[in-house]
Amino acid sequence: MIIQPIIDLVAIVAKSGIHQAILSPGSRCAPLTLAFARHKDIHCRTISDERSAAFIALGMAQQLDKAVVLVCTSGSAALNYAPAVAEAYFQQVPLLIITADRPKEWIDQWDGQTIRQENIYGNHVKGSFNFPDEFSHPDKVWHAHRISNEAIKLAQTYPYGPVHINIPLREPFYPTKEEQYDYEQPHILYSEITGITVLTEDDKIKLKHALSSFKKILIVPGQHKPDDLLKSLLDQAIDGDQGVLVADGISNMSSINSITYHDHFLPYHASHETYKPDLIISFGKSIISKSLKRFLRNSGAEHWHIQENGYLPDTYQSLAIHIKTHPIDFFNFFIKNATAIDVNFKDSWTLADQKVADNIGEILKQVDFGEYKSFYKILPHLPSSSKLHLSNSMGVRYYNFLGAKSPTYEVICNRGTSGIDGSNSTAVGCAFTTKDPITLITGDMAFFYDRNAFWHNYSMPNLRIIIMNNHAGGIFRLIEGPSDQPELEEFFETRQALDAEHLCRELGFKYFRAENEQTLDEVMKIFFHKSVHPQILEVFSDSKANAEIFQRVKSDIKNLLTDSSQNYSL
Amino acid sequence: MIIQPIIDLVAIVAKSGIHQAILSPGSRCAPLTLAFARHKDIHCRTISDERSAAFIALGMAQQLDKAVVLVCTSGSAALNYAPAVAEAYFQQVPLLIITADRPKEWIDQWDGQTIRQENIYGNHVKGSFNFPDEFSHPDKVWHAHRISNEAIKLAQTYPYGPVHINIPLREPFYPTKEEQYDYEQPHILYSEITGITVLTEDDKIKLKHALSSFKKILIVPGQHKPDDLLKSLLDQAIDGDQGVLVADGISNMSSINSITYHDHFLPYHASHETYKPDLIISFGKSIISKSLKRFLRNSGAEHWHIQENGYLPDTYQSLAIHIKTHPIDFFNFFIKNATAIDVNFKDSWTLADQKVADNIGEILKQVDFGEYKSFYKILPHLPSSSKLHLSNSMGVRYYNFLGAKSPTYEVICNRGTSGIDGSNSTAVGCAFTTKDPITLITGDMAFFYDRNAFWHNYSMPNLRIIIMNNHAGGIFRLIEGPSDQPELEEFFETRQALDAEHLCRELGFKYFRAENEQTLDEVMKIFFHKSVHPQILEVFSDSKANAEIFQRVKSDIKNLLTDSSQNYSL
Repeated sequence: MIIQPIIDLVAIVAKSGIHQAILSPGSRCAPLTLAFARHKDIHCRTISDERSAAFIALGMAQQLDKAVVLVCTSGSAALNYAPAVAEAYFQQVPLLIITADRPKEWIDQWDGQTIRQENIYGNHVKGSFNFPDEFSHPDKVWHAHRISNEAIKLAQTYPYGPVHINIPLREPFYPTKEEQYDYEQPHILYSEITGITVLTEDDKIKLKHALSSFKKILIVPGQHKPDDLLKSLLDQAIDGDQGVLVADGISNMSSINSITYHDHFLPYHASHETYKPDLIISFGKSIISKSLKRFLRNSGAEHWHIQENGYLPDTYQSLAIHIKTHPIDFFNFFIKNATAIDVNFKDSWTLADQKVADNIGEILKQVDFGEYKSFYKILPHLPSSSKLHLSNSMGVRYYNFLGAKSPTYEVICNRGTSGIDGSNSTAVGCAFTTKDPITLITGDMAFFYDRNAFWHNYSMPNLRIIIMNNHAGGIFRLIEGPSDQPELEEFFETRQALDAEHLCRELGFKYFRAENEQTLDEVMKIFFHKSVHPQILEVFSDSKANAEIFQRVKSDIKNLLTDSSQNYSL
Repeated sequence: MIIQPIIDLVAIVAKSGIHQAILSPGSRCAPLTLAFARHKDIHCRTISDERSAAFIALGMAQQLDKAVVLVCTSGSAALNYAPAVAEAYFQQVPLLIITADRPKEWIDQWDGQTIRQENIYGNHVKGSFNFPDEFSHPDKVWHAHRISNEAIKLAQTYPYGPVHINIPLREPFYPTKEEQYDYEQPHILYSEITGITVLTEDDKIKLKHALSSFKKILIVPGQHKPDDLLKSLLDQAIDGDQGVLVADGISNMSSINSITYHDHFLPYHASHETYKPDLIISFGKSIISKSLKRFLRNSGAEHWHIQENGYLPDTYQSLAIHIKTHPIDFFNFFIKNATAIDVNFKDSWTLADQKVADNIGEILKQVDFGEYKSFYKILPHLPSSSKLHLSNSMGVRYYNFLGAKSPTYEVICNRGTSGIDGSNSTAVGCAFTTKDPITLITGDMAFFYDRNAFWHNYSMPNLRIIIMNNHAGGIFRLIEGPSDQPELEEFFETRQALDAEHLCRELGFKYFRAENEQTLDEVMKIFFHKSVHPQILEVFSDSKANAEIFQRVKSDIKNLLTDSSQNYSL
């Protein structure tokens, strides 16, 4: 049976500019599946594992900057979305999650595939709506239209995020042959005139006055999409000596003159007074660098955060001013009004960074083959105008240690919840939105955790995956604490035996392997060439050796930075 | 750093008789991991994919009838437990879920792996506790002990179910070499004297009087663990003509004289007055048969449900009396007090059932090779004293159609939420608890959905898996509605290309395949022989052909049942 308010929901979705849906198979959701699949302006794909489906939708929405629709059937299907929903919530990615449900009277009656779906995503959605389950009164139709509009608006209002519509459905689920789908029935279509928030002249006078008392300004962007205009404003601020820009890898804001090797030198210089800022200016979301977080928390600096609206974290335990405007508006003001910072402060940061930059290549040249060196050697091969997906946990950390300056690719990582659970799927979703090359660099744990990302029939010729396979969660050997415990191998590293060759064979992906520098170099020459199918490169290394190399690099850099015979004013 | 109340929690767990834990790797959870791993009476295993980990724990707890501990780190790990938590909730399986968290002050500050974990399982746990995050006041220590005891008690009080303890933890997570684990520090250990609920003489007089007005009593057990005493009481009731027992496959209550072919004949006899009960007596949880549910809902019968306590569903929309005692107590009363039922009523059911039983073998002999025939041929080979796991969705349905009488194996299926998401893992968990043979019969969708069930290093020599691979969600072709839609193949069946051969090779499982009756017969001769590694048999069939065979069997049985030349009084 066709339920017109569901057809209207789909029409409203399409008219609101949302054109992508990920469906998972089910019977209860059939009225939704058919309504989405039959709408000419909505591109539907079907993904069987709902956990992957939701991360794929997230990967798409990240790129499109528009909500992607998820549709699943009743029961635990909806719960398999939960990890990606939480990631989307904290990463502020818009998703429109539509779950089929049984009508209320059948909840808790031990009917099949029936759970308690109302508000099932708890505190990890921006809103949760329950669609009417019958439409005999005209107010119910209005309510359905209202929910449809409101959910879309909420998902796509800054800060973006996931929104849930739960739809109770009764049999029959399928239309008869005579029934027609009419997406043009009258329905409310809501739109917004949103305006923009800008600093007033009065705000600017106050801020200018406040700024004048700071001489050691550290600009710390958190995770952010690439933004050329914003980046050029930051460049102007650095060039004008108005601040030091510390660009974490996931900020997509690093330029030639920004600081990117802070993970290396902060542990040794954190207590040096010349490094300590008196003002931290941040925008965007979280940062990767634990050293930087620790340093900022202990710096005693005041912290200003720029964010149009939404809830505000105090990542550095010193938040003093929330500047409620877009970073572009703020930095336009900033470059016109900030005065020059302290020279010693600036030099300390830039010289330390420069020193690591000048030497890290040579240091990595000296160490044995392993993850660290492979990472270093691979990055320059990444195609320009491409997207680099990094998995948690070591992938994104190595990248940050390698301090890429002004890369030509976008860096993407699921840092909302920092899980390993959906890295593959997020990259797959990304590959569905663009013909640009997509490279995922991941570890074996993250890769095999989410192998169902590839369990579908859609083409991804632009996808490249590099797996750093050390047959374990190697991070536990690299961080202090677990590496000293007798339980390290079984309960922390959790050795795992798989490699990706079988998986490639079963999926028809092209498979490359590298076990030394030479084979890696060979593969790099051809790995990014065009192909019909995805290609996977598996770089094998030993977890213990990786840990030793990691320590060796650390100690080489420590020697470099603390060598008093050098002329740097550290 | 060692946190004594966490050591105490583990000590209380062990002293309460809980000896199994499934840990997933993480750093935040390290104090928990170490405390569980180092306790001599707790057997710990580590599973990296938390979704599988939780279903594995469920599979263990189902068998042990005791809570199994789950431990994971902070962030989305906890959300990956959610599908199994909901299954455990509705299936009433005890789980003690322990999640590491950041302390409250770090929630919503954009620190890594931080989500909103309090009450994260919403309405799908029996209780949710937050451990203290510091213990400077002695009341905090008492509170930690209180929570530990209460959570265990709640999980293991009928109706059993999952209970969640969220534990905020601060660095340092790891003990120094000097620190000692002392599980014998003083702590409260709570126990219960529970008593049992039994019918009073007064209750019995009332029930006897009430019973005397019914002449057509249908006894309908829902999903239940095997129980020899209960089964023998039911047998006595049947032998005494006190009721007709309709034993769905998952009830584990079928005997030679029970009705098991109801799925076949009810569609044709549902409106016959002689079949209609005047009283339905049920116990246990849900049933599989949709025909039976429909029939009972339309029968006009009064419904009594026997259940000691807990919330009560009204699956047949006619619930009149909740008898709050154990089914054994009730049927002890029943066999002494119920009078003989109507002969026509009894004969209608037993003759229809007999007719299908007498002919189904011949009917299946005539049809082409496919899922249906394979299922039929495989069941007699199942070892006695074994466990048969059935996946949703077609696995358990075929089993019910095949109407096994008094099987010597236990039938297990995740019918709490009826999802396909954890069938493999549940069977794996079962294999961890017993040396008895475990057979999982599943479809390709359920099998590949949950392939991470096998991603660990533990031995499962007693596990056998039979995959009915039709390269699709074949159920959508068998049920009415989707099979008529042009979207059938892409959006309902969702054709998938995988077979299990690569997976077996990568895991070192022995692989068998069957594409016809002869190879199936050959494999069956050796498939259940002892082995070191798990063994997988993949039975290939075509989804369209399976649908045709299903219809053919249905129509042959319809002809059989509605053929007036036969002598049966239908």
